[in-house]
Amino acid sequence: MGIYLDNAATSYPKPEIVAKAMYDFMINNGTSSGRGSYQKAMQSDFLVYETRKLVGDLFKFKDYKKVIFTSNVTESLNLALRGILEENDHVITSSLEHNAVWRCLKTLEKEINITITKVKASKEGYTNPLDVEKEIKNNTKLIVFNHASNVLGTIQPIDEIGKIAKENNILFLVDAAQTAGVIDIDVNKSNIDLLAFTGHKSLLGPMGTGGLIVNCDYDIKPLKAGGTGGDSAYEYQPDYYPNKLETGTLNVSGLAGLKEAIKFINKETIQKIHTKETEVVDYAIDKLSNVKNIEIYGPKKSDDIVGVISFNLKNKRAEDVVNELDLKHNIMLRAGLHCAPNAHELIGTKDIGSIRIGIGYFNEKHEVDTLVYALNEIQD
Amino acid sequence: MGIYLDNAATSYPKPEIVAKAMYDFMINNGTSSGRGSYQKAMQSDFLVYETRKLVGDLFKFKDYKKVIFTSNVTESLNLALRGILEENDHVITSSLEHNAVWRCLKTLEKEINITITKVKASKEGYTNPLDVEKEIKNNTKLIVFNHASNVLGTIQPIDEIGKIAKENNILFLVDAAQTAGVIDIDVNKSNIDLLAFTGHKSLLGPMGTGGLIVNCDYDIKPLKAGGTGGDSAYEYQPDYYPNKLETGTLNVSGLAGLKEAIKFINKETIQKIHTKETEVVDYAIDKLSNVKNIEIYGPKKSDDIVGVISFNLKNKRAEDVVNELDLKHNIMLRAGLHCAPNAHELIGTKDIGSIRIGIGYFNEKHEVDTLVYALNEIQD
Repeated sequence: MGIYLDNAATSYPKPEIVAKAMYDFMINNGTSSGRGSYQKAMQSDFLVYETRKLVGDLFKFKDYKKVIFTSNVTESLNLALRGILEENDHVITSSLEHNAVWRCLKTLEKEINITITKVKASKEGYTNPLDVEKEIKNNTKLIVFNHASNVLGTIQPIDEIGKIAKENNILFLVDAAQTAGVIDIDVNKSNIDLLAFTGHKSLLGPMGTGGLIVNCDYDIKPLKAGGTGGDSAYEYQPDYYPNKLETGTLNVSGLAGLKEAIKFINKETIQKIHTKETEVVDYAIDKLSNVKNIEIYGPKKSDDIVGVISFNLKNKRAEDVVNELDLKHNIMLRAGLHCAPNAHELIGTKDIGSIRIGIGYFNEKHEVDTLVYALNEIQD
Repeated sequence: MGIYLDNAATSYPKPEIVAKAMYDFMINNGTSSGRGSYQKAMQSDFLVYETRKLVGDLFKFKDYKKVIFTSNVTESLNLALRGILEENDHVITSSLEHNAVWRCLKTLEKEINITITKVKASKEGYTNPLDVEKEIKNNTKLIVFNHASNVLGTIQPIDEIGKIAKENNILFLVDAAQTAGVIDIDVNKSNIDLLAFTGHKSLLGPMGTGGLIVNCDYDIKPLKAGGTGGDSAYEYQPDYYPNKLETGTLNVSGLAGLKEAIKFINKETIQKIHTKETEVVDYAIDKLSNVKNIEIYGPKKSDDIVGVISFNLKNKRAEDVVNELDLKHNIMLRAGLHCAPNAHELIGTKDIGSIRIGIGYFNEKHEVDTLVYALNEIQD
């Protein structure tokens, strides 16, 4: 089977019930949601509603109709950014953003002349909330921050930034791609107006699922228009949720999987999942530190990061290392920029990239031992 | 199990291999595509490539990298319409469009002042290609037509319209939501520049899959920007396919299902699928004609329609009929406007909607008999 350490890209394995629920839905129900009125279609509607509720509850968000489902977190972020930012708006963002945010902002800068302020973080990826506050201008409409860097793992101070956003009446969008399901998130406590999440990473659900929690009254412009199964004679997208921002046939079988994934997380508890992951992370940082010629980037303690550790071996190309790990030791991890060039600019690896370990709930310490052994072995 | 006659919304059942392939992928591979370089990730890449190839071949399209995957046909249509139409452009469309096209066009009319010409069809849904030709203006950039109406089933003369579009150097976008998988489509022969399709209807694949064939060189503006797994340091969406129009994690497990669905179709052959469906459609039209108080809309011959038949029972609300059919006879079909108010305007049912039968490959004549019996019975 090999050792899978690319959980920051997508989690593997998932709880078996996830794939099973999808299979069962497809075989035994298979109907669309929000369309027909026959009983099986209503069961499909109810499944989608239950998933909305589970997602909402996970983030302490009770207005379930404003849990919007998308195909992935990139779509969620584009929906939020394109739906909110208008000509000449100013936006503040971190220096650790994934391209799902960064490329979208750069495109809007070119298309509608928004201005972007990138708040510099430390080399470990720490952002000082005061550095965010001092960038606020009259036309600042939005602050968008990832919750944890997908390169360094560094958790951002979203509580403090959320407070600043609220005090200044600025919308706050959080990219929870690396945290949803492994760190407790309370959208109200953290003053998060919009939370973008993906289903297939730490939420342990299937690819093809994701969403956006709309915890604000802002009139977000839909990214797409089309059928919603209701008010069909109205010629524009309806103005009520979730239909306003959800169009076309939902990935109901995917949501059947996501539903079971969140039930699994609730049963295990986020606390237990987080504790397990931090134990393996601490163990990994400790053991990796002894690997020959290693340079580990980012914070060296699990309190400050999610299960993401980036490193390089001096004098060895990252790509060569991961290839050798895969071919000789059946260990799977990823080399490159991880779609987040800004984070690499911060740590000085924009030209060489890094090797990234993505630790998930199902990784064990002995897998770290095997990785450490292999990293030394390939240098012999 | 009941009788499922809502295949125009989504097909059910699917070949069992579709759900099985998704399950197997999730359990045995589960990795993202276009991201890592380890062997399992390469297998995932190859699976996506194979699916791209199968989809391309199905539509006689050989430039596989320009088979773009989306989450559903609504997204495909929004991508094409928003990516092509610019301020003051003129667009010609049918009077049978689904809201996936119509609402998108109306939104663009409001946002960027496009002008829309809706070509009137006959009450049966026939469009005269010459009526399309005479609406062409200097600023006509695009003709967008559904291939077959999702209300009347009527197949549109896309060969003739494609020829007109080509002669006039106008882009031609076809919505194949109701035809892909059941009618042979050759994008080159029909001069289709852009073909939007969904995976979960007649292609027999899972929800959460769809796509757009880009059979032209037009510089389509991406609907979303984000990570593509390559060229990460470039601050905008890359300009090569498929990355230009595909961003974020693909629904690889969904594509694993779609791949098997298309292999199933290829094995059966579209010819056989089409013949089987038209036999059941002819049988249904014949038998339904004898139902008390029935008014059937659209053409009454299978040569001119896909497996979609709309009707009403005089003096009975469509919603009541489908509820009774479901509760008393376990027959599933749908009442309403079917997200296509324009088609209902054509047949004079915009206020009352219609009952729609969606016949799929797995429907049998005896199911039609049961429906006919039930339709008479609920009127006794």
